[in-house]
Amino acid sequence: MKGTPLTAISARITAVDTYDIRFPTSRELDGSDAMNPDPDYSAAYVVLRTDAVDGIEGHGFTFTIGRGNDVQVAAIGALRHHVVGRSVQELCADPGSLSRDLIGDSQLRWLGPEKGVMHMAIGAVVNAVWDLAAKRAGQPLWQLLAHADPEWLVSQVDFRYIADALTPEDALTLLRKGREGLDERETVLLNRGYPGYTTSPGWLGYSDDKLTRLAKQAVADGFTQIKLKVGADLDDDVRRMRAARAAVGEEIRIAIDANQRWNVDEAVEWTNALAEFDPYWIEEPTSPDDILGHAAVRRGVAPVKVATGEHVQNRIVFKQLLQAGAIDVLQIDAARVGGVNENLAILLLAAKFGVPVCPHAGGVGLCELVQHLSMFDYLALSGTTENRVIEFVDHLHEHFTAPVVMRDGHYTAPLTPGFSATMHAASLAQYRYPDGTFWAADLAGAEEVA
Amino acid sequence: MKGTPLTAISARITAVDTYDIRFPTSRELDGSDAMNPDPDYSAAYVVLRTDAVDGIEGHGFTFTIGRGNDVQVAAIGALRHHVVGRSVQELCADPGSLSRDLIGDSQLRWLGPEKGVMHMAIGAVVNAVWDLAAKRAGQPLWQLLAHADPEWLVSQVDFRYIADALTPEDALTLLRKGREGLDERETVLLNRGYPGYTTSPGWLGYSDDKLTRLAKQAVADGFTQIKLKVGADLDDDVRRMRAARAAVGEEIRIAIDANQRWNVDEAVEWTNALAEFDPYWIEEPTSPDDILGHAAVRRGVAPVKVATGEHVQNRIVFKQLLQAGAIDVLQIDAARVGGVNENLAILLLAAKFGVPVCPHAGGVGLCELVQHLSMFDYLALSGTTENRVIEFVDHLHEHFTAPVVMRDGHYTAPLTPGFSATMHAASLAQYRYPDGTFWAADLAGAEEVA
Repeated sequence: MKGTPLTAISARITAVDTYDIRFPTSRELDGSDAMNPDPDYSAAYVVLRTDAVDGIEGHGFTFTIGRGNDVQVAAIGALRHHVVGRSVQELCADPGSLSRDLIGDSQLRWLGPEKGVMHMAIGAVVNAVWDLAAKRAGQPLWQLLAHADPEWLVSQVDFRYIADALTPEDALTLLRKGREGLDERETVLLNRGYPGYTTSPGWLGYSDDKLTRLAKQAVADGFTQIKLKVGADLDDDVRRMRAARAAVGEEIRIAIDANQRWNVDEAVEWTNALAEFDPYWIEEPTSPDDILGHAAVRRGVAPVKVATGEHVQNRIVFKQLLQAGAIDVLQIDAARVGGVNENLAILLLAAKFGVPVCPHAGGVGLCELVQHLSMFDYLALSGTTENRVIEFVDHLHEHFTAPVVMRDGHYTAPLTPGFSATMHAASLAQYRYPDGTFWAADLAGAEEVA
Repeated sequence: MKGTPLTAISARITAVDTYDIRFPTSRELDGSDAMNPDPDYSAAYVVLRTDAVDGIEGHGFTFTIGRGNDVQVAAIGALRHHVVGRSVQELCADPGSLSRDLIGDSQLRWLGPEKGVMHMAIGAVVNAVWDLAAKRAGQPLWQLLAHADPEWLVSQVDFRYIADALTPEDALTLLRKGREGLDERETVLLNRGYPGYTTSPGWLGYSDDKLTRLAKQAVADGFTQIKLKVGADLDDDVRRMRAARAAVGEEIRIAIDANQRWNVDEAVEWTNALAEFDPYWIEEPTSPDDILGHAAVRRGVAPVKVATGEHVQNRIVFKQLLQAGAIDVLQIDAARVGGVNENLAILLLAAKFGVPVCPHAGGVGLCELVQHLSMFDYLALSGTTENRVIEFVDHLHEHFTAPVVMRDGHYTAPLTPGFSATMHAASLAQYRYPDGTFWAADLAGAEEVA
């Protein structure tokens, strides 16, 4: 068997390399909202290296907004011993086995369980494995998932703590039914893309003129929904909402987003005070932990819809939001929960309860990641894009080797193999904190001034 | 004004020093349960140093069970800039101001919010401030809290996201009423102590003989309640529960604890299968995030009570457990949530809903801390110890300068000023990981063997 690449057979993960990547976005007030006045969009970035001859790496990250990105990097490092030495082939054939090992680490589990810093670290590593698997398969992740065997997909889901709402049998039924018409939908997806909406006009830090200009631009760009940040000052919100509605007309949906600013009563009062401008949904009206609170808000603001999810910690809280009838729109985030495996569980829960999924995105690379999950959902689970849109924010895409491509308000289907998580090496070298070229110069300058 | 200690007037926090302290408890199977087979009880330990002439330090910690303690230490370090340079006097007069700043850090908030690693780090720092405040006041913390002005206590509580269940006015009413009869209860407390229960007999790793011997010893020691870990194997649990009931007789309460092992249906079936042995409560039957799940379990296992809380991430989840009628017993933990301030909120919520608080303790120093909160609750809020017990585990107390003292199954009231959080310097030097004397020798030995 001379010439057989033995390393391809026995390839192992050889390294889990981490990078503290931070972008100085706070200096432009991009991304400012009622709870996050000055985010520095950041990524606790991880690269899985192997000794396979193909040289393919798995990339993943947790998105943060600045301080604490070092803690997130340390958390990813704490998972290293579960990953290094594993067979690449086995890992890519069954990412769920690693997911279960990471979530089940009996000592690390104390730091969650399944929430916050440790759980997001698990998400970064698990997503990097899916990136590796899709690259090795030569497919974009959405396509790998959409054409995967339903039984195998079910095997990738952890039903612990959600079996009272979704059993493996339920999941299999949904996935089998979801495949009907897949090929036709794939053609539509490849031709048309997946609808997006844009938050770019609505950041709190922007002037009314900028808001109006960007809102009109959004409509011209083909978006049928925009979003405004609210919750800092009601008079301001009334004025901004009026300006936005005047800018986009009656047909365009305007979502509003309070970023958890309110208590339950405030959420109801404030939202109703904006009702005359016909907001489509109110997003994150209160704490993402408050299932019963969201249910009360929903009762209080109908017909305005209630949306949440970007800060929902795991499938168990999503399960309850659905069980309690607390939300009209479920907003997954690709880098908050425990990675693709947990997002499969969440997509299945949403399908079971018939609630549309409209992902959170923006930040660094969240658009790049989450489009794959929505496209899978469309092709092989929900089967529709009706009332479904992926958030789009036009920030920092230039740092990715396969950035999202928008066309007429739609995400075009990415064709590059993988999970679209890979950043340019030059970006990593420039924005690594504190020793990348940008930060080294910036911090030296700050020292000089001081 | 020669001789006036200026430093006492203008004293500042000068350092936030952290220590990664780990004890090799996994080698004895102490602390083993259905989800935590091999814990190495650990503390991410913090010392606040000041330039005050009194030389008093504030000590606090997060409890963990081994791996990841370094991540927890990094998280405490990420809070340092909020603390260093603050006025000691202002900080001790209003720990709530720091608590709000830490929880409200707009960038760090992304890593929670208010849950997991970052929130536990906040708890460690906030608790260290309360330790400093009580030491400077020359009082044990329970006494400082119990004699504090109700208005001031209310000012220490963050009502965000709980105001729909507990308003500041509600809190003030409860605290004013709670003070009636305080002096009489303080006499009782000083004479008799606060009732405890013991988990020492019931670890999963113990043989039936050891269980029986320790259960009888617990009764002889004056405890009226013991606890058994369950959930790994039903046949084993039936046998162990039978042995425990035989050992202690009919009058002693036996709580059982599944440490989140089950889904909702399993929890109901398993608990009911043990009902013939009259378990007092089933603790952590399922995920601590599953409010609706606990409510379903409670309906399914009555009259066995449902208890949870040691892994409940914050006041918002406790609020909902109470609103949903999901628990009979609320188990605070001194080092899981955001410190004393958040535990005040939780104690007030429990009082409002009339649910008894039976703290989780054990681990490293959790008994030392949480006794203060229960004693405050007895003296100045709930006014009773009926159906209230603090968990007691006889592990690792020797490392504290003011360890708990049990007498006839009761926690005696600590009289040493502070929050009882201070470890011996020798313990820190010995068990600091990986360079303390114990670990350096242990790791060198392991290397030699390998």
